[in-house]
Parts: sequence; C-alpha cells; structure tokens
Amino acid sequence: MATAGQRIVVIGGVATGPKAAARARRRDPHAEITIIEKGRFISYAGCGMPYCVSEEISDCYSLTHTPVGVPRDAAYFRNVKDINVLTQTLAVRIDRQARQIETVNIETQEHRLIPYDKLVIATGSTPVVPPIEGMNLKRVIRLNQLEDAINVCDLLGSCTLERAVIIGSGYIGIEMAEAFTRRHMQVTIVEMLPHILPRMLDPEMASFLTKHLRAKGVTVRLNEQVKKIVGDDQGNVSGVVLASGETIPASLVLVAVGVRPNIKLAQDAGLKIGTTGAIAVNEYLQTSDPDIYAGGDCVENVELLTGKKIYVYVPLGSTANKHGRVIGDNITGGQTTFPGILVTSVLRVFDYNVGKTGLNEHEARANGFDVVTALNPSPDSAHYWPTSKSVLMKMVADRATGRLLGVQAVGPGDGVKRVDVAATALTCGADVKHLADIDLAYAPPYATAIDLIQHTANIIRNKIDGLAKSITPLEVKEKLDRGDDFVWLDVRSPAEYEQMRIEDPRVKLIPLGMLRRRLNELPRDKEIITFCKISLRGYEAQTILEGAGFTNVKFMDGGIVAWPYDVVTA
Amino acid sequence: MATAGQRIVVIGGVATGPKAAARARRRDPHAEITIIEKGRFISYAGCGMPYCVSEEISDCYSLTHTPVGVPRDAAYFRNVKDINVLTQTLAVRIDRQARQIETVNIETQEHRLIPYDKLVIATGSTPVVPPIEGMNLKRVIRLNQLEDAINVCDLLGSCTLERAVIIGSGYIGIEMAEAFTRRHMQVTIVEMLPHILPRMLDPEMASFLTKHLRAKGVTVRLNEQVKKIVGDDQGNVSGVVLASGETIPASLVLVAVGVRPNIKLAQDAGLKIGTTGAIAVNEYLQTSDPDIYAGGDCVENVELLTGKKIYVYVPLGSTANKHGRVIGDNITGGQTTFPGILVTSVLRVFDYNVGKTGLNEHEARANGFDVVTALNPSPDSAHYWPTSKSVLMKMVADRATGRLLGVQAVGPGDGVKRVDVAATALTCGADVKHLADIDLAYAPPYATAIDLIQHTANIIRNKIDGLAKSITPLEVKEKLDRGDDFVWLDVRSPAEYEQMRIEDPRVKLIPLGMLRRRLNELPRDKEIITFCKISLRGYEAQTILEGAGFTNVKFMDGGIVAWPYDVVTA
Repeated sequence: MATAGQRIVVIGGVATGPKAAARARRRDPHAEITIIEKGRFISYAGCGMPYCVSEEISDCYSLTHTPVGVPRDAAYFRNVKDINVLTQTLAVRIDRQARQIETVNIETQEHRLIPYDKLVIATGSTPVVPPIEGMNLKRVIRLNQLEDAINVCDLLGSCTLERAVIIGSGYIGIEMAEAFTRRHMQVTIVEMLPHILPRMLDPEMASFLTKHLRAKGVTVRLNEQVKKIVGDDQGNVSGVVLASGETIPASLVLVAVGVRPNIKLAQDAGLKIGTTGAIAVNEYLQTSDPDIYAGGDCVENVELLTGKKIYVYVPLGSTANKHGRVIGDNITGGQTTFPGILVTSVLRVFDYNVGKTGLNEHEARANGFDVVTALNPSPDSAHYWPTSKSVLMKMVADRATGRLLGVQAVGPGDGVKRVDVAATALTCGADVKHLADIDLAYAPPYATAIDLIQHTANIIRNKIDGLAKSITPLEVKEKLDRGDDFVWLDVRSPAEYEQMRIEDPRVKLIPLGMLRRRLNELPRDKEIITFCKISLRGYEAQTILEGAGFTNVKFMDGGIVAWPYDVVTA
Repeated sequence: MATAGQRIVVIGGVATGPKAAARARRRDPHAEITIIEKGRFISYAGCGMPYCVSEEISDCYSLTHTPVGVPRDAAYFRNVKDINVLTQTLAVRIDRQARQIETVNIETQEHRLIPYDKLVIATGSTPVVPPIEGMNLKRVIRLNQLEDAINVCDLLGSCTLERAVIIGSGYIGIEMAEAFTRRHMQVTIVEMLPHILPRMLDPEMASFLTKHLRAKGVTVRLNEQVKKIVGDDQGNVSGVVLASGETIPASLVLVAVGVRPNIKLAQDAGLKIGTTGAIAVNEYLQTSDPDIYAGGDCVENVELLTGKKIYVYVPLGSTANKHGRVIGDNITGGQTTFPGILVTSVLRVFDYNVGKTGLNEHEARANGFDVVTALNPSPDSAHYWPTSKSVLMKMVADRATGRLLGVQAVGPGDGVKRVDVAATALTCGADVKHLADIDLAYAPPYATAIDLIQHTANIIRNKIDGLAKSITPLEVKEKLDRGDDFVWLDVRSPAEYEQMRIEDPRVKLIPLGMLRRRLNELPRDKEIITFCKISLRGYEAQTILEGAGFTNVKFMDGGIVAWPYDVVTA
C-alpha cells in the first residue's frame, strides 16, 4: 500500500485543472488528488468546439478523447492517473481556515466537505452577458462549455435555421461565422467597434480580413450597437435590433462579446483579486494564500513586453495547459515559474490564416513606444513554387532600439509559422537585426531565400536607417480625404495595371524598368508617393528617385495588395 | 548626370553577387557596379532546380524571373538597377596591386581588364568529382548550374530513361531521387555511409526517413562504395559497379557527393583561405584584403553553437542571400555584421517534411557536449483535427544547463515550423525551459495546446530532472543484439497491438488503464522497458511503476512509432 500523501484538490476540470492534477501525480505517486468539475465533462479540448459546429469534427465527444481514442472520463482518471474526479459538482465555498471546500452535487444536491493541503483554482471564465433585452430567448446562444457545443450541434441537426447573427467579432465570433456559413446559414456579424477582431488586429489588417469574410458571404456590420434581441410568439429569437432602429432577421443569435474570469469563489474566500478583475497570482501561480494556486482563464497574466498585468478576454488553451504544468510542479514541492504571455493568438478564417503575437501598433503606441511599422504582403514560399500563397504581414518595432514588439499576419499563406518565430524572438527580446540574421529553414516549398518575416524585418531596418521612406495606407487615405495634391506613382507594368488599379486622378503609371529614363515626366516640387504590387518595386522607385535628386518621395507600405480600400479590377 | 562614384565589381552572378550589387545600388546611387558571371544566366533560384526536373515547376527559365514574371537578365539589371552585367565571362585573375580583374569572354575569348575600388567574390561552389572511372560517360550528370537543370530536362524530354542511380544521399541526391521517381524512373540511391543524409540526421531519424523513401519505391543502398561507372558502346552510361562487384544497371547517373568551394581565384590572388578550405572572412565578410569581400558558397561560416569555422558541403541559398545584403552594406560604407549560421536545412521528401537546425546528437557529442535527447512523434495539430499529421522530432540539449543544441524533424506533419522556432531559440541561446514557456500560437488546425516542440522540450526537462527515465531505440537494439533479459512492456490497447507490434518474446502487453491493477504480473528484480505508440503512456507507465516501488524502469523514447527496426503490422 502507498503511504498516505498530501491532499490536493483541484477546482475546475477542463484544461488547467486536469493538467495540474496529472502533473502532480507524476511527481508525487502518494498524493490524494481530487478534481471537482461543475459540468458533465472533464479534460476536453474546448478550442475545438467551433469545428464541431462546422462538422469538420464529426463528434463533439471526440474532444474528450485521448489521441488514441480513450475517453478522458472519471474512470480514465481513476485507472490511469489514480485521480478522483467529481463531475456535476459545484465548489460553493473555500474555507481557508479549516482548509476545506464545500461542494454541492448538482443532480443530488448533496453537500460535502473536502479537505485539502494544496488547492488549485481553475474555474475558468464565463461569456459576458451584455445588458440587453432578449438574452433569454430560445436560440440565443453562447459557446463556453462542451455542453453548449453539443446543444448547438443538436439544434442545427434537428431543424433548418437560415440566418445567424453573431454579436461580437472576437475569435469565437469569427470562428463561428465560418462554422455557421459551412452549415449553409446566412451569417451577419455585428461589431460595435470600427473593425473586427478589435483586440487582436490593427485596422488595416482587420480590413484586409474583412474583405475575405465578405467574399465568403459573411455580412460584416461595423460600428453597430445592438439595442435588443427580439423573438417570435414561440419565444424563439427572430431578430437583432440595432441602435439605428434597423432589425436584422435572425433564426439563431450567438453572443460572443468576450469572457469574464470566474472569481467569485476566490473573492469570497478573501483571495487577492488583481486590478484587471482576475485572480492575482505570483510567478509561481500562487494566490495570496500560499497553499492555494490558480491558473487558466480565471487569473491575470504578465504581458511580457510591457511587464503589465493583463486579463485576456478570450480563453487561451495553450496558456491554460502551461499553467497546469507549472502548478502541478509547485504543489508537489517544485519551484517552477511562469514568466508570462505575449497574447499570441491564431485562428483560421475560411481560406486565411490569421495570427498575432506581441503588441499591435495601437497597443504599442498606447504603451508609450515610439514605433516603426512595416506592411509586407509576400509569398510564403518561393514565388515560382506552384502552391505559393501570400501572407500580409505587419511588423511593429521600437524605433530607438529596433526591438521587435509584435507581428500580425493575415492571408492564405502560412503566416502562423512566422507568428511562432516572432513569438520566440519576442520572448528572447530580439531586435529586427537579430530576427533578420536567424538561420531559418529554406527550401522552395517552405520559404523564400530571405524568409518573409526577415524581409519584413529588413524593411524596418531600412526605415530606421533612413534608407526606406514610407507612408502607410491609412496615412495616404487621410491625404486623399483632405484632398492633398501629390503624384501617386504606380511603377507596375501596364498589364498589372489593367488587372487591378487604384482609380484616382493623382495616379501616374511609369513601369519601374522605364523610370530611370522617364524621370523628366515627374515634378520635382511635389510630393511623390510610389507603389507597386507589394512595395518592393515601390521602394526601389523611391531609391531611384532619391538617387536622381528628388527630395520628397515615399513608398506606400504594402503596395496595392495591402491597400485596404477600393480598387478597380479587370 | 550622376557624379562618378566608386567602382564595385562583383564576381559571380547567382545569389550573393546580385544581392550584394542590388543592395549596394540602393545605398549608393552613384557607384559604378559590374557583375561578372561565367554562365548564361544570372540571379536565378538554383534551389528550384530539382523541381524543374520533377516537372512541378514547368519551366526552368521561371527560376530567373522576378515574382511578377520579369526575367532578371542583363537588361533588367541595367534598366531597373543601373547595374552592368557581363555574362559568359570568366574572371581569370585578380590583380590586387593594380586593383583590377582580368576577364575572358567565353564566346569571343576577348580579354578585358576591369578596375575596381571594392571587389566582391561570390564564385560559389562546384560539385565534388569522385575519383572513379566513368565520370565522363554520357548521361552521368551533376546538378550545379541552371544549365545543368535545363540539360537534364531536355534529356528526359527527348528520350525514355528507365533507371536512375544517384551516388550520394545528401540534399540534392534525395531531392533528385524524388524528382526522378516523379518522372517514372526506377531510382537507386547509393550511399557510402551507414545512413542517408549523413551530415544532417542522426541514424534513427535517417532510418525513419529511409522507410518512407522505400515505401515510395526508391531503392536505398547503404554502406556501399561505388567502384566505377560503366557505359555501353555508344558511350552512354549503363551501370554503376559497387565495391562488392555488383553492377546496378543505370540509364542515368547523378553524382551528388557534395560541393567544394571555388577558391582558386582568391587563392591565386593571395587571399587567406581558412582551414576548412574555403575563403576566410571576418564578421563583415571581408577577406584578408580589406577592399575585397566574399560570400555565399565560396566562404566559410561561423557555426553559432560551437563558434567554430565550418564549411557546409551543400549550397545554402538563404545564407548566400543574407551574405549579399551584408556585403552590399559594407562595400558602401556600412558596418553590418554576419554572426553565423546554424546549418539549418530543410527538404521535402515525397510526403515528408525533413528539417534540422543546430547540432544533431552526433555533432553535439563530437563537440564535447554531455547531451540529453528526446525522440517524440507527435501530431502537428490537435489530434482530433481531421488533417492532423505526425512529426517525429528529435531534440538535443546540454545536460548541465538545459541549453537547446538542436532539433531534427521528419514526417508528414509540419516539422518545418518547429525547426524555424528552434532556429530562433538557438540563435537566442534559449534553454529547454525558455522554449517550453514561449507563448506559441495555438488553435486546433495549427498546433496542440502544448506544441510538439514544447512537449519535446518538456520531455528533456523531465529527463534532466530525473522524473523521466528513458532508453533510446538504438540502445534497446543493442540490448536485443546482446541478448539481454528484460521485460519489454507494451502499455497500448489490445487493438493497437493487433495493428502494429514488435515481435519479441520479451514483449508483454498490459494496457495502461490496467497497469495499476496488474502490477503483480511484473517482476521486481528485472529491468522493465515500457513503451506505447509514441511514449506518452510509456512515460506514464514508468512513473506508475516507480510510484509502486519498481526500481529499474525506463520508457523507450518515441514508442513504437519511432522504432526504426522491423515491426509486424496487421
């Protein structure tokens, strides 16, 4: 028989909790370990839920299975891990003095006291409920627990719903817009702010993605506030009423306006809550009570670039799992630290891969950085490779030091690889020269000889050195709106111009190969803004003109490909 | 008119040379810049050549085009870059005193003297010619310049060749094995050493890849030396004779046993040649003559992990391009450094992606490191994601410090992303904890919640901490060969066992979920080696047995998936 060991109790059975428990077991074979979970399921992959709705994953229950298809249920935890699991059990009170948890079984209403030596709080988060009428109508849904996904799948399997309205354009809103579209529904996203994924992307990156969503049939309504949700006489939802008074018909409404940490249990027990509103923990993920640890969606994290405590309004499964491992160590005598996060996030949006790590331009400026940015649409593999696809990358760096601050990537190409490289570089405090020097893997199917992230870093280096002088599409748009006079020099070929062009009287076409011979066609007393398809030739044109003595020349970042406004196509 | 500027001469027009010239032009509009190239083509993507032979790229000439389809020929360089290009021109002598180059036009035999202020040597490399008979037979080919690819494509287009023999299993040999297979040829690779890609992969990783090559119909002959190449009475090659006397019939022979730097010009001019046999340069890529720079395949590089000078026996297009940018800076007054390389390399091999960065185990041990390794076959995305694919990763770290030393990845999954993350981490001197802490991008289509590279890093951490105790497949094989007695405990399910198993009397099957209840079936006085599919449950079994007081337990690294020897399948 094993010696009686310390009692470890874990509240919350989705990601952090089971991971902490399993890790603790591996380090301490004699501990008595109990997981308390309010739902029916434990240890499931919540991030997979949108793909169950889209039917790309055929069975919601597969999210609870191990890689070899064994359900991770109470019996599994008992047999394999020697861990006791109580599902459908609510932890209602932590008695820190007596070191015990009061629980209620949701089905039997039975109360129970469970003693602990070490306690882990992994209570997760709950979707924010906006203060509007109609939230209780039938077919007004949220997506939080596996039960929610099962219910949506059952609903869509049992009747034909034609119109989905999604309130909020965060990760879940966007992922579900795709899922509902794949289920042949007409989807409208209603976003209060001026662009989608407002906590993730800068405006021009969001615009680029919005074009793709619209091309896939999703209606995107920006700057629109929802006043209320209305229903029919059966109590089913029938529409969403905007502040403007307009009603968008809806047979299903998904509310996805972010999540809020589940802190009540911790708060009632007198544990310290951070200024972000989530449970405060130190680098060991220890709460203000040294015997109580917390992790996952209920705690705040350190943002590595600013050192600030933040709460991320989106569940992050990767962080939750990392937390679990750290906690598992520390409740069994370890001294493992969790340094913090970069709020790296990635999602698939139809044919596009969308990712971000570190700070976007808006966040960097809000944190006081003097930034330099680059916008670079480049192929993800050799341009002559038959399946080469484009990635629009935006990079943000600190002007004085060249330190990398963040990367965003949107497009059909493999931007995710570059986001991971950027996350690694950010973690190490790399500057843009370090990034450009890295010996990244090159072969034509996988990259260009100078990888697109290094190419983007080089653009930043050229800007910092004063060699490349650029203007962002947003700045050009402001000039257009003001009616500024300038030469908008398109240096692409006539064939490219026919295919896609910006229709504006300021545009003048001189292909790059002709430019050195046609300099006399350009005024020396006017601002010249050059561009091409992606900005490589635009930059070349800028250097040619500067070399020829022109003094007021810039290239437009990202070229026509990254121009987020209207273009004329053949 | 532009002011007369300094004269920059670049010898070599493939990668480093044109890049250096173009970069110099952007920084110095007034320099007179000349590129001298011995071949017909300049500025082409040599790494794309195997895919021209495979017909995945339909036209060899597309390798000379810009992303928008403009040929990068002399006219292009003249018009766009104001750079003078002399093709079919051989640089025969550098006169450092007079600062001039003597050139010969290959067609006209015209001699010319070209003066320089700054000289760039980018003469590249030449395939090694093994000292065997028959190298001059027709259809005995090498792949070095674009002309070679054009000639092979013309040959395969004009007649049906049935059997290709490839001498050497480096990158080019392996890539061409696939290309010839795609052209419906029967391909045999002959490698002198005991495993393929001997400079890249450790033996078990190479074995794993060899299985895939064989499954695709390629014959791989290891430990075989070629004695001579023989021909028919038309002078066409007919076979390759091995040291054993055996003749392998061949209608085409590709010799790909590495490359040698083209140093003659530099050597004749008295420039310092490094101990590696390549041109010695400092961190500015400056030769022993301060006005002469060199880069690309003709110079030696610093290997970042050991600090040693190395010569890489394979052309690296990415390094060549980075060199070009650094040289372009420094010949125009810049002070840019090139820190070194990790010999990161990647290639596609049929359905597998194969990559490596940093040191493999063999290299790390040869450099005096006390290493700890992990072998981890894991899915590249959530296991329930329909297109999830497996990557076999091997990680090498320093035991004392946990510092990452290298990563190898082989398999159908996206190992290349992880190689790039590893290259970034290696550049920053990260240890395995740093690597495991990085906030990498997670969503089910792209990764697992704890990414496979972080999972591998955690295995190393567990080994260093003494929590995980493992034995490598190679060590198990040695035990088998010695006839050691031990229990080889397979903890998979009976269904998995039926599907694929190791047939050996020492194997005992106890599914993990039963293990805690069936401990009495296991001897306490014998070594127990546990395994499962990939080693996750094998590790779990090790901790269960240790928790139950067993003292001589290890899990087999990588499980049955990474077992490089025979298995029985259903």
